[in-house]
Amino acid sequence: MYPDHTIQEIDQIIAKSQQAFYQYKNTSLKERANFMRAIALEIEALGEELIKTAVEETHLNENRLYAERKRTIFQLNSYAEAAERGDWLEARIDVGNVAATPPKPDLRKMLVPLGPVVVFGASNFPFAYSTAGGDTACAFAAGCPVIVKAHPAHAQTSTLVTKAILAAAKKCQLPDGVFAHIYAADIEKSAYLVKHEAVKAVGFTGSYTGGRALFDLATQRKQPIPVFAEMGSINPVFLLPDKLKKDYSWIAQQLSGSITQDMGQFCTNPGLMIGISSEALELVVKELTENIKEVVPGKMLHKGIARNYVNNMQNAISQRRVEVIYQSDYKMGEEDGVITLAKVGAQHFLANPELHEEVFGPYSLLVVCKNREEMLEVAQKLNGQLTVSLMGTAEDLTTHETLLSVLREKCGRFIMNNVPTGVAVALAMQHGGPFPATTDSRFTAVGADGIKRFARPVSFQNWDNEFLPDELKNENPLNIWRTVNNGLTKKIINDK
Amino acid sequence: MYPDHTIQEIDQIIAKSQQAFYQYKNTSLKERANFMRAIALEIEALGEELIKTAVEETHLNENRLYAERKRTIFQLNSYAEAAERGDWLEARIDVGNVAATPPKPDLRKMLVPLGPVVVFGASNFPFAYSTAGGDTACAFAAGCPVIVKAHPAHAQTSTLVTKAILAAAKKCQLPDGVFAHIYAADIEKSAYLVKHEAVKAVGFTGSYTGGRALFDLATQRKQPIPVFAEMGSINPVFLLPDKLKKDYSWIAQQLSGSITQDMGQFCTNPGLMIGISSEALELVVKELTENIKEVVPGKMLHKGIARNYVNNMQNAISQRRVEVIYQSDYKMGEEDGVITLAKVGAQHFLANPELHEEVFGPYSLLVVCKNREEMLEVAQKLNGQLTVSLMGTAEDLTTHETLLSVLREKCGRFIMNNVPTGVAVALAMQHGGPFPATTDSRFTAVGADGIKRFARPVSFQNWDNEFLPDELKNENPLNIWRTVNNGLTKKIINDK
Repeated sequence: MYPDHTIQEIDQIIAKSQQAFYQYKNTSLKERANFMRAIALEIEALGEELIKTAVEETHLNENRLYAERKRTIFQLNSYAEAAERGDWLEARIDVGNVAATPPKPDLRKMLVPLGPVVVFGASNFPFAYSTAGGDTACAFAAGCPVIVKAHPAHAQTSTLVTKAILAAAKKCQLPDGVFAHIYAADIEKSAYLVKHEAVKAVGFTGSYTGGRALFDLATQRKQPIPVFAEMGSINPVFLLPDKLKKDYSWIAQQLSGSITQDMGQFCTNPGLMIGISSEALELVVKELTENIKEVVPGKMLHKGIARNYVNNMQNAISQRRVEVIYQSDYKMGEEDGVITLAKVGAQHFLANPELHEEVFGPYSLLVVCKNREEMLEVAQKLNGQLTVSLMGTAEDLTTHETLLSVLREKCGRFIMNNVPTGVAVALAMQHGGPFPATTDSRFTAVGADGIKRFARPVSFQNWDNEFLPDELKNENPLNIWRTVNNGLTKKIINDK
Repeated sequence: MYPDHTIQEIDQIIAKSQQAFYQYKNTSLKERANFMRAIALEIEALGEELIKTAVEETHLNENRLYAERKRTIFQLNSYAEAAERGDWLEARIDVGNVAATPPKPDLRKMLVPLGPVVVFGASNFPFAYSTAGGDTACAFAAGCPVIVKAHPAHAQTSTLVTKAILAAAKKCQLPDGVFAHIYAADIEKSAYLVKHEAVKAVGFTGSYTGGRALFDLATQRKQPIPVFAEMGSINPVFLLPDKLKKDYSWIAQQLSGSITQDMGQFCTNPGLMIGISSEALELVVKELTENIKEVVPGKMLHKGIARNYVNNMQNAISQRRVEVIYQSDYKMGEEDGVITLAKVGAQHFLANPELHEEVFGPYSLLVVCKNREEMLEVAQKLNGQLTVSLMGTAEDLTTHETLLSVLREKCGRFIMNNVPTGVAVALAMQHGGPFPATTDSRFTAVGADGIKRFARPVSFQNWDNEFLPDELKNENPLNIWRTVNNGLTKKIINDK
């Protein structure tokens, strides 16, 4: 529907983006925030057309898409607020003293934007983690122009959102190079984008294969650049014995909802459950199965995802000693999600790396352990995860101290008596875990701390006050929090 | 003198380090700070033996080494203080609300240590950026065990410092796996260390070739890990016209001191000066040459460095249209630094990438520009740098706005009317610039912000207060700054 941009066009787009950087990086925090708020308004103004287009392209239902649009707008507005608040700048000032021996230099440090950022959006979040989604909002807040590579599965939706962003840029009198939208179904063109000298960072949400490929390209450049790839996860849920006994029905209810919501097409879908063999565990399985039987399977995002899901799921359940507990009916070639629940013994899970891979869709595997030691072994063997959840009582936590210590090393978000789905947009959110969950566990893809992905510190030494950025001037004109001589304060600095 | 450890021994050392991690990561901030202070005391207690050993191994003079030991002790103590202050933890709390629709989860985030860190120290800082230097201090503060690969050029000094660290660990009742010292002259063993699954981050100070090789190994791992390599820089100094006219004598004095200090063996040595052809520029060159003639060349750090320096310097001055302004006498094979000042026209500099490479030692190249436009072209063509310095008056800054904007993108520290040598240990310091100055410009190798290199955020969702880390408990028992519901505060949280 949209022909690919040519390499020549891509070169021009990037050159324009780089030019825009020299203007956009000097905008004030307030100007950036206003731009982001203007984008939110323009997206809202797209009205039903946007929702209808997305329903057609993604098979997600209207309610979900209304909610996702709301989330997207909330993200833009709340990151705008965070950008303006300025905590993310990590302003530090060590006031100089020429009279000291040796003279103490005046040092003032803050984060500055990296440069043009390329964003590859997610198939499963056509608004919130796509064209004007979290990565784009964070990059704009940091002061970086953005180049979005249109997701082929919702290119029309993406094109509509692009119009909204460009309209906002115009209203805010920003250069139109501040945002660009590239059609590039050819993967060589994605590679070209990531390898381009003027591109300074990459945001990506998608598969391990895609994320790893971009990461490799970016790190093997002459000048390597950071890639923030969120590559999904199997989000283990540990069912501890005391909680299991006391609350199996509630656990079953929580898990069935989380596994099947939107056909399991979340990076936080609970793809793994771990419990110790017991009567209570059997009761959970029974109720979980009953609950899941009630769920009517819906269409998956697109044919490619449905096909991949069936392949991966079939591969998983054909592994040695994996037993299917429940599976919804299906015929090959259908786009409906095939809800599947399976189980396997811990030793077989430990021995088989295939079972540690994500199966993106409505699938979850129960690992049955003989005892607490085996459960600990499973924990130790886990790959890096976006989330690890525990269902446990105070008694459970006290008796599983080592397990807790091991699991903290495996995840970015450590959840107690909650399911992993539902990623709140909040400053204290961490959406990023040890590899292979993400390529850089030191940063988050959700929440305003994500702004820091696209910035780096510069220290200004011995500058006259008038030539310093406002953020670092003695009089603190932006009234931001700064660490002055090692103490956090909003106070002004008395010039000597 | 010290035989290499075998691969089997290295495996055992790393296993011990990993074990120690599970204990050390749970130490309180206070315990870590006390450990670091104990190391500082033990290093001081090594007394003159340490200084004498280092003088023999490095050819640095006693005064310099006393000063460097003082710096090392200051680093340990000031990072200990920063560790305890806890700002680096970036504690964020978004208090939950079960009554909200949908219920708002309770989210509490803080940085946690990455795991065992491997450190490759610098040849030119046997104390401050070596065994118990900045990287080690930061890793300990973050809660990570450290494995130092002994620098072959000062292995004996390194062995002495190791004794001090292990004595401190013992006094603080920490597992001795918290620190390990590996002899590995064989570079394959360095590669083995960086590729080892249990190693979670690498600190490195040294050459571009070494740093890039480690970076490539680390990013090509199955589970990539961060490498913080500080690989040096040519630290351009821009001499702006008005300042040049008004202050040429002062500029000449500053530069001659900075170029020749400790035979130019600093990563912040000003290897490049850029000025516009004028009478004032000639006066600077004349005085600079006169000043430098007064300097008596001393021995370089070791034979290898002296040999590399002569090779690189000879290669640089043999480039097309490079003219030697001044060179101290030398005979091949001597270990004395050959102080060398050269110049080249801007167009030749722009056309020749060889002239953009670092020549580690007492060498500096003056790039003579015809006009302001040519100076801007030189700025645009520069590689990433640790520092960029400007010698300029208020008038200069006003008339060179574009130059300033371009140069900010090139460096981590942007210096006004100061020379680049002298890296203050301060929170507002940034010692890390765009590639190839460092492999990760988002972090600093000097100053307490360097602690954050060895940590990543974990968000705790819906945990009961009693099971949360102290840093995130309602009552804020450590009295640290935390961002609660988007506002910085030390206040306690009222439990509902």
